[in-house]
Amino acid sequence: MIELTLIGIGTGNPQHLTRQAEAALRAQDLILIPNKGAGKDDLAGLRRAICDDVLAGATHPKIAEFDLPVRDPAIANYLERVDAWHDAIAEVWQQTIAAHRPATETVKVGFLVWGDPSLYDSTMRIARRLETQTETTLRVIPGITSIQALTAAHGVPLNDVGAAVVITTGRQLRDHGWPACADRLVIMLDGECSFQTLAAADHPITIHWSAYAGMENEINIAGPLGEVADQIIQTRAKARADHGWIMDIYLLER
Amino acid sequence: MIELTLIGIGTGNPQHLTRQAEAALRAQDLILIPNKGAGKDDLAGLRRAICDDVLAGATHPKIAEFDLPVRDPAIANYLERVDAWHDAIAEVWQQTIAAHRPATETVKVGFLVWGDPSLYDSTMRIARRLETQTETTLRVIPGITSIQALTAAHGVPLNDVGAAVVITTGRQLRDHGWPACADRLVIMLDGECSFQTLAAADHPITIHWSAYAGMENEINIAGPLGEVADQIIQTRAKARADHGWIMDIYLLER
Repeated sequence: MIELTLIGIGTGNPQHLTRQAEAALRAQDLILIPNKGAGKDDLAGLRRAICDDVLAGATHPKIAEFDLPVRDPAIANYLERVDAWHDAIAEVWQQTIAAHRPATETVKVGFLVWGDPSLYDSTMRIARRLETQTETTLRVIPGITSIQALTAAHGVPLNDVGAAVVITTGRQLRDHGWPACADRLVIMLDGECSFQTLAAADHPITIHWSAYAGMENEINIAGPLGEVADQIIQTRAKARADHGWIMDIYLLER
Repeated sequence: MIELTLIGIGTGNPQHLTRQAEAALRAQDLILIPNKGAGKDDLAGLRRAICDDVLAGATHPKIAEFDLPVRDPAIANYLERVDAWHDAIAEVWQQTIAAHRPATETVKVGFLVWGDPSLYDSTMRIARRLETQTETTLRVIPGITSIQALTAAHGVPLNDVGAAVVITTGRQLRDHGWPACADRLVIMLDGECSFQTLAAADHPITIHWSAYAGMENEINIAGPLGEVADQIIQTRAKARADHGWIMDIYLLER
């Protein structure tokens, strides 16, 4: 039997760790850390650093690293490609757990999840796949998301009083434009600065943009979209080149 | 000069506290705690309990309680009523700080904010009012929101792969129905079980509902909306009567 715990660790600032996350890390038998390969080494390194800090040299739990499968470019459909990728990751999880588990009936296995396990993260979906193969329980420890890190960095509310907010992706913004139901949008997973596709509208738009939100190298730019768009595009390109990877997020208000 | 720090404490589970929040609590000169009056005593009590726990009997910072003004029922317009209420609260903050501040040039004042200061919370808006009267800096410490507590409790993702999610209120759902841009909605601030207004639609709807999400007395109900709606309504009414207050949240998926 596997007791899986998905542990939200916040957005890369070890100070985002909750008491609950620290206790959960210490309570595992085995912690699995993915090697994401070149360019994302900061993230694997960060997970190791958090474990080193919280576990402080204890020999238990055991840390096991595994190579994350890559998406199969032969599968044209995006959702099918992601689905097959999640299957492959679940298979690697099973193998890694089998190779490193203690000889007990039940093994407690923990994963450190960037931000929160519920938000644009596949760990929960992969975890559900294990249930079909092994008796598995799933526990989720909430973590600070990049949305909270963004609004904290800028000192701005997420929503207007009593109003709705939409959390969506760069692709959705490009394909469908500004949704009718809200005057505030949070855009995530946007590799293309999709705010550029917003027509110069009747309503002026304000943007609050953060890269590496919550981390030491956090960058924040805010202002009228028309005035700061170019600065964000250039800053993003430079930061990505400097660090080898980037994670950014922004709040749009009209 | 006032250095204000709004400290997200999560949703009532002291285990939601982050390292950053604990450090920020200890770093203040003065911590202001509102007495919300009858029915909400659990919340004032919780804030005091968290301070007792984190500060562990230290005489610094000083804890000052204040009576929260009530909204003026003579102001008919909702947004104007809220606006005037925020003005009144900012005034009480100023008075309370003046009465309890140390005789130093700069005073560090902290507020414990339920959940995260950015999400359906007025503390940030009230803090901005102080800036117009006193030289004030504002720092925000992110906290676990009830959205994370909800999805963690049920072990479900917030969003579908690559899809949008709308965070909105019970009133918005009642007044405007299901927004077109997303198949998942998070409903907050809903005193009226507004899911009842959703027509039995072509699309079946699933609900994940939590009351007191993250707290000891957390209640979770999930299932097809048509099957569990009555159970939620009855459970909510009983819990509210038993505890004298309720805070609930739900995720709808169609």
